[in-house]
Amino acid sequence: MARARLRDLGITTGALPPGALNAITDVAGVKVGVATLIRDAPHVVRTGVTAIWPRGEEIWQEYCFAGIHSFNGNGEMTGIPWIAEQGLLGAPICITNTWSVGVVRDAISAAALKAGATQNFHLPVAAETYDGWLSESEQFPVTTALAIAAIEAATDGPVPEGNVGGGTGMICHEFKGGTGTASRVVDGFTVGALVQANYGARDLLRVDGVPVGRMIGPEVVPSHRVAPREAGSIIVVLATDAPLLPIQCQRLARRATTGLAWVGGIGGNGSGDIFIAFSTGNTVRQGDTLSDVRMVAPEAMTNLFQAAAEATEEAILNAICAAETMTGREGRVVHALPHDLLVKAMEAYRR
Amino acid sequence: MARARLRDLGITTGALPPGALNAITDVAGVKVGVATLIRDAPHVVRTGVTAIWPRGEEIWQEYCFAGIHSFNGNGEMTGIPWIAEQGLLGAPICITNTWSVGVVRDAISAAALKAGATQNFHLPVAAETYDGWLSESEQFPVTTALAIAAIEAATDGPVPEGNVGGGTGMICHEFKGGTGTASRVVDGFTVGALVQANYGARDLLRVDGVPVGRMIGPEVVPSHRVAPREAGSIIVVLATDAPLLPIQCQRLARRATTGLAWVGGIGGNGSGDIFIAFSTGNTVRQGDTLSDVRMVAPEAMTNLFQAAAEATEEAILNAICAAETMTGREGRVVHALPHDLLVKAMEAYRR
Amino acid sequence: MARARLRDLGITTGALPPGALNAITDVAGVKVGVATLIRDAPHVVRTGVTAIWPRGEEIWQEYCFAGIHSFNGNGEMTGIPWIAEQGLLGAPICITNTWSVGVVRDAISAAALKAGATQNFHLPVAAETYDGWLSESEQFPVTTALAIAAIEAATDGPVPEGNVGGGTGMICHEFKGGTGTASRVVDGFTVGALVQANYGARDLLRVDGVPVGRMIGPEVVPSHRVAPREAGSIIVVLATDAPLLPIQCQRLARRATTGLAWVGGIGGNGSGDIFIAFSTGNTVRQGDTLSDVRMVAPEAMTNLFQAAAEATEEAILNAICAAETMTGREGRVVHALPHDLLVKAMEAYRR
Amino acid sequence: MARARLRDLGITTGALPPGALNAITDVAGVKVGVATLIRDAPHVVRTGVTAIWPRGEEIWQEYCFAGIHSFNGNGEMTGIPWIAEQGLLGAPICITNTWSVGVVRDAISAAALKAGATQNFHLPVAAETYDGWLSESEQFPVTTALAIAAIEAATDGPVPEGNVGGGTGMICHEFKGGTGTASRVVDGFTVGALVQANYGARDLLRVDGVPVGRMIGPEVVPSHRVAPREAGSIIVVLATDAPLLPIQCQRLARRATTGLAWVGGIGGNGSGDIFIAFSTGNTVRQGDTLSDVRMVAPEAMTNLFQAAAEATEEAILNAICAAETMTGREGRVVHALPHDLLVKAMEAYRR
Repeated sequence: MARARLRDLGITTGALPPGALNAITDVAGVKVGVATLIRDAPHVVRTGVTAIWPRGEEIWQEYCFAGIHSFNGNGEMTGIPWIAEQGLLGAPICITNTWSVGVVRDAISAAALKAGATQNFHLPVAAETYDGWLSESEQFPVTTALAIAAIEAATDGPVPEGNVGGGTGMICHEFKGGTGTASRVVDGFTVGALVQANYGARDLLRVDGVPVGRMIGPEVVPSHRVAPREAGSIIVVLATDAPLLPIQCQRLARRATTGLAWVGGIGGNGSGDIFIAFSTGNTVRQGDTLSDVRMVAPEAMTNLFQAAAEATEEAILNAICAAETMTGREGRVVHALPHDLLVKAMEAYRR
Repeated sequence: MARARLRDLGITTGALPPGALNAITDVAGVKVGVATLIRDAPHVVRTGVTAIWPRGEEIWQEYCFAGIHSFNGNGEMTGIPWIAEQGLLGAPICITNTWSVGVVRDAISAAALKAGATQNFHLPVAAETYDGWLSESEQFPVTTALAIAAIEAATDGPVPEGNVGGGTGMICHEFKGGTGTASRVVDGFTVGALVQANYGARDLLRVDGVPVGRMIGPEVVPSHRVAPREAGSIIVVLATDAPLLPIQCQRLARRATTGLAWVGGIGGNGSGDIFIAFSTGNTVRQGDTLSDVRMVAPEAMTNLFQAAAEATEEAILNAICAAETMTGREGRVVHALPHDLLVKAMEAYRR
Repeated sequence: MARARLRDLGITTGALPPGALNAITDVAGVKVGVATLIRDAPHVVRTGVTAIWPRGEEIWQEYCFAGIHSFNGNGEMTGIPWIAEQGLLGAPICITNTWSVGVVRDAISAAALKAGATQNFHLPVAAETYDGWLSESEQFPVTTALAIAAIEAATDGPVPEGNVGGGTGMICHEFKGGTGTASRVVDGFTVGALVQANYGARDLLRVDGVPVGRMIGPEVVPSHRVAPREAGSIIVVLATDAPLLPIQCQRLARRATTGLAWVGGIGGNGSGDIFIAFSTGNTVRQGDTLSDVRMVAPEAMTNLFQAAAEATEEAILNAICAAETMTGREGRVVHALPHDLLVKAMEAYRR
Repeated sequence: MARARLRDLGITTGALPPGALNAITDVAGVKVGVATLIRDAPHVVRTGVTAIWPRGEEIWQEYCFAGIHSFNGNGEMTGIPWIAEQGLLGAPICITNTWSVGVVRDAISAAALKAGATQNFHLPVAAETYDGWLSESEQFPVTTALAIAAIEAATDGPVPEGNVGGGTGMICHEFKGGTGTASRVVDGFTVGALVQANYGARDLLRVDGVPVGRMIGPEVVPSHRVAPREAGSIIVVLATDAPLLPIQCQRLARRATTGLAWVGGIGGNGSGDIFIAFSTGNTVRQGDTLSDVRMVAPEAMTNLFQAAAEATEEAILNAICAAETMTGREGRVVHALPHDLLVKAMEAYRR
């Protein structure tokens, strides 16, 4: 589905080196799956589900630490109370469209049952962004089966980007948006980001500081914009193998804000900008009376913060670069960011 | 369904007077609906949905202020990010079982569509407590239709209590629990509470300070207890006509903790004790550029806090008093608190 | 200074056994010091400072985990941002009067310097409750020296209660209040509480459920009350040797709410009800790149919660029982709770 | 004290127009005062106090709404619990150095007394950043009198920038930092920012997207750096005349993160990045039973967010531009950003 990634165009952002795949799956054990739903009848549907496994099937019994930050809460992420309370993540995370976050949330519980997880109940994390400009998602096209398909399709390795999974119908900075990923390596740790990017005003878009959004205005590449400015949302999932405590995962999640700002996201009122970070560097086994865990020094967080910000920034740009022009409901078109124009803008600005 | 209410037994708690119905519906405009699902085949199901309308159908466009407090977040309440962000509630609140909170969440959006609400999307509040000891709720028996039935069944007037709606399969202090409600009037304002009570250890149960749970131990009335102590949860919905700001709704919500403590709830680890308070005393109309709202003085909150604590306390006790003994999956029985024993305990203690 | 403790009167609350001293110092390593300032000229002063050391002098380099909960934030506790951010406590905690929380906060930094602590700066925790009804504390009588005296006076062993340290000029449920402490042992762990109790309405006071405040009304023992109902505050410091993470310390701190509720505290608007919990069961050494720490299972928190609630409850009652009648500025008198009346009330109620 | 402001150099950032003064004092009624302490004996001191009045002396009885966000809480801001609880600001805000935040906090209470404020107590907001690399502030040179001098010196009109007040000894992106201010006008409302900027790595510094910090490296202009990367802090005070509720002030405060990110601040571990926003557009009078207040539509927040981000960004850059090279303790020198190099860098990058 993908056209190209930012670095394929010779453009880099940030200072830290990416991991081997420049993807959230550079964090060992993390897997990503997508299920995409594109059809024109009986309703025009451009939607899907993205699933992120923090670790393998053992996640049902061997929990990760996690933390959440809501930069602008005009969105939904289920599972917030338990993550805030005890910081334990015991299921894959799913992202879909706004109308369907409930069915996907319940589907994660169904997947747990199917996998033989023995808990009495689950409090899974499902999040969303709105794709209703392109997709008749108010027809509730997402099913339990679709969500389970995404969950079961997950693999390590390269991550599909652009118009896939929950990112299918996204719009970002008034270009076609979608799913994107990136990673950074620092101090021997990897930090990966996966975003579902669906926010932003054209004029605010920056690539490595260059005001690309002002240089490629709606007179050059048409904007879909009829909705209020900065409607839309972004979900950011951050993964790291650094052994963090829950409180440190919260800190890391908050740094998605920085990466988002670098691209030009200001957390507009209509935007559900909700971020979750998890650490695979600690394991809490269900039933253990006492868990031995490790904590990186507070001072070590600074570099992880930079890694999280850079990975988020590049993941958004990868989403935009990978997404292809899409026609949706009522014949509406959202244009992809033309790669040649992007490269030209970068070159014009930086000698 | 209900057997009796606490005051019907000659027992009172708290110092402030209740409203006319001693129910959340004493707050003008508030409506409550329940849909109950009790069947034995193909699966043993004891569950349902409870819906609370903050005001009439105009809620889709004329929002209330609201605030949430999670005393112990081992539970789910959707809609948290937007309530935390801007404090606006624009839909009925629903409560169901843990496995089904997603379908019910989406169903509220479906109800909005059906009612002609014009927003692009909704971020509804759906909450849950676990009824899996009595009910095969992991079979996902709750449907969109059931949730919409609860939403559409809502009325003002007396509120059904005990084994109804989302409260159908509840267990509270090792007696049969369920749905309960109560209200208080102070300074010309009404504060109402509705609870779905499903938490608590027998030995901690107190009624107006009297250690009823120790006096009516499992040797007198058998306990179901096999699960860890203090598993279960309680959702508390507080309503008031006092003109509160969102930040003040948060404050009010936090006082459900006090009422819960008075009955003997300590927010055990397994308990999802999540509270939402809304105020009908202000209205924010969709599309208005500027809203005129009112705020009671901070000093006025003290009496409202006491009212919230007392209404929560009595709502829990009403849930316990109204609930009837129930037999569920695998022949399991949860016994109701016998009224005569309760009255005798109270009399024995207080001359 | 103390008259008696609750258990000296034959009254017990809660179900769990206390530690050897029934004091926060039952948590190994915890030390408490008080410096009391009572003088009548040039101003009538009834104030002081209480210092709680989480561990010995090594605290300057060997940090504890800690967490804070504000039940009603009409008060001050410094150090909140860092405790919320990373959960590390690296200094003794001090409590004083409202006007002087700043000087005491800086004094903790001065004590760190004096002790040779090598950090570039400190973010100490100093908290307060208001003693201005009895004391001309707006004259700023508390000095750096007084705070350092409390810090340096700290010892393990029995803790002075009643009209001592920061608790000197307190009023609680319209009786004389002050400093109090208690502890509980559960699952091999100790949870201790120290309170500076300065809140509450007479009519809400309960002792083990018995409505003592209504039985010993102002017609029996005069109340000072001229101020709004429920003015005042309570600071609760919880200590445990259970190995908790910061997020679990936050959870524990929140349970002071439960113990407070049992005595009759509802977090009135004017009350600064702010709670801090720390765990000595983990150590994070300044400069360590990676710290090995332990975490009790989430399920283990339930018993610790009960312990925290019970210790808080009894610590408040110990503060009230220990405090003696005090005459302060403008000849104002705050009466102690007469022990004989308390005992009689308890006996009358529980046959 | 100031050398020049960013716009004096022909450089602009952001898209929205500034107010008349491009200062926080563009918000009608806001006043700023500074008291600067520069001396070489008996200790080398480079510190001070900055005071921001939300409105005139009436603030003691006519409160503003306010909200706080801690992006990285390795710092101190007093008054957090009450602002979080009820969102009322009733005193000038002061900023000083880390060692002295206590004395300055108490001094605000003393100023209230002196001004005849009638409350029983105050919970003032005092914040800090660390100036100990240049100043022997661990000698506690800041006095009550100095803080009161800053408070009483406050005026409307242009705001002193650079090495003044609490900003005297600051270091920002490894150049000399300090106090800075800026403002934006949007939708008829003004948003002003005042920062005490003391954070940041050289290589991350960006001006309008241009990587100035990489272009003017330590080989060109020496860095002081010995401390860990990203030590330091930034306090941001945002003011607006838009009628916001407390919850909306919290939202606005969070957007200082965006402006900070644009300059290159990532909230490093050692940084106390704490932001407060207040609205003069509503007034809550002490003693009023009911207050009529107004709320801008949620949708209106987007433009205010952009204004807050832009004002924060430019205020930081103004702090850097205005600050002059300073020699401090032990002969340490922190170099100002040379204006000619900055201009050259901007020109080189943007043709």
